[in-house]
Amino acid sequence: MHMDRFPSRLLENAVNEFAKLPGIGRKSALRLVLHLLKQDVQDVEIFGNSLIQLRSEIKHCKICHNISDTDVCSICANPTRNPALICVVENIKDVMSVENTHQFNGLYHVLGGIISPMDGIGPSDLEIESLVSRVNEGVAEEVILALSTTMEGDTTNFFIFKKLKNTNIKISTLARGVSIGDELEYTDEVTLGRSIVNRMSFEDSIIK
Amino acid sequence: MHMDRFPSRLLENAVNEFAKLPGIGRKSALRLVLHLLKQDVQDVEIFGNSLIQLRSEIKHCKICHNISDTDVCSICANPTRNPALICVVENIKDVMSVENTHQFNGLYHVLGGIISPMDGIGPSDLEIESLVSRVNEGVAEEVILALSTTMEGDTTNFFIFKKLKNTNIKISTLARGVSIGDELEYTDEVTLGRSIVNRMSFEDSIIK
Repeated sequence: MHMDRFPSRLLENAVNEFAKLPGIGRKSALRLVLHLLKQDVQDVEIFGNSLIQLRSEIKHCKICHNISDTDVCSICANPTRNPALICVVENIKDVMSVENTHQFNGLYHVLGGIISPMDGIGPSDLEIESLVSRVNEGVAEEVILALSTTMEGDTTNFFIFKKLKNTNIKISTLARGVSIGDELEYTDEVTLGRSIVNRMSFEDSIIK
Repeated sequence: MHMDRFPSRLLENAVNEFAKLPGIGRKSALRLVLHLLKQDVQDVEIFGNSLIQLRSEIKHCKICHNISDTDVCSICANPTRNPALICVVENIKDVMSVENTHQFNGLYHVLGGIISPMDGIGPSDLEIESLVSRVNEGVAEEVILALSTTMEGDTTNFFIFKKLKNTNIKISTLARGVSIGDELEYTDEVTLGRSIVNRMSFEDSIIK
């Protein structure tokens, strides 16, 4: 059946491989592969090798567990960043999101997930012990919990809070409130309610 | 700026490469690359190499110009197919579409495009001369023009028709009419009008 459809095993293999990627069906996979067929041999080699090299050579920073090209990542190795602040995030993407704000000059700690009993992910699957060790080394002064505001995020926040509450460290979390640019009419009630209870000084609300 | 955003050059390279593919933006590229990072090293090697191998080893059938793993493709080399029928199509995908119908047992001729002055594609850019040579060899009895029913498709059909009209070959084209499963209310007027003029015997309309 498949031999009927595909005029080439090489084509079929490439389509099958592409279709394993999330969100890419067999039609899209074929379209992408036919596109690659029209490119120069060297360009396709560069593409394929960039993926192979990424996977085989990538490292995880031994301090913050973010992905890195070196044993210690460029953020942890940067002497202009403040080691007293540790921002705890779920994954690599979240590091990039916070970095893109240009509002944070501390270091990170990448948990590698959040506690999610439904998915079989418990505290021991995450980089929580290494966070505790890092805090016990004594350089950090504040841990900022920057996890999603979901049930799983809250559970993980609370677990980390319990682990760290006997140290002298300050534990904070991201401000919750009405998103900037949101119309009040469309803000959910829980967020709006909390925003009133936790109202802040007008001066602090001005974006500098 | 980019070094800020990406914690790794390897990651950045892979994302840049993925984002070159049509229909894949930088956000999707990052998502796909982070997915690959979670896969086994061997699996990513298989993926990358399947693309490199496809591009470097793929051949074009010297008879029909379809892509092939061998000098003559599996369709042209198949002795049970009828060499008297040549179905002319625009590209590889169209061969696969016709094959998927399981209604055609002849051979193909892949033009590699259609005449499109707007895109700078003229007859000499297409495999039209090789079609004429193939017909002149004398095995073929009928050429079926299976191009898109667009202006470019019609132009290409007419050009090929002129090139072949002095041979003894029968030249046919795909039946045009109301799509099977279409409601008449939503069928465009041109198609419906032609379908009435070119009405067919009811017996022939029954799908066997």
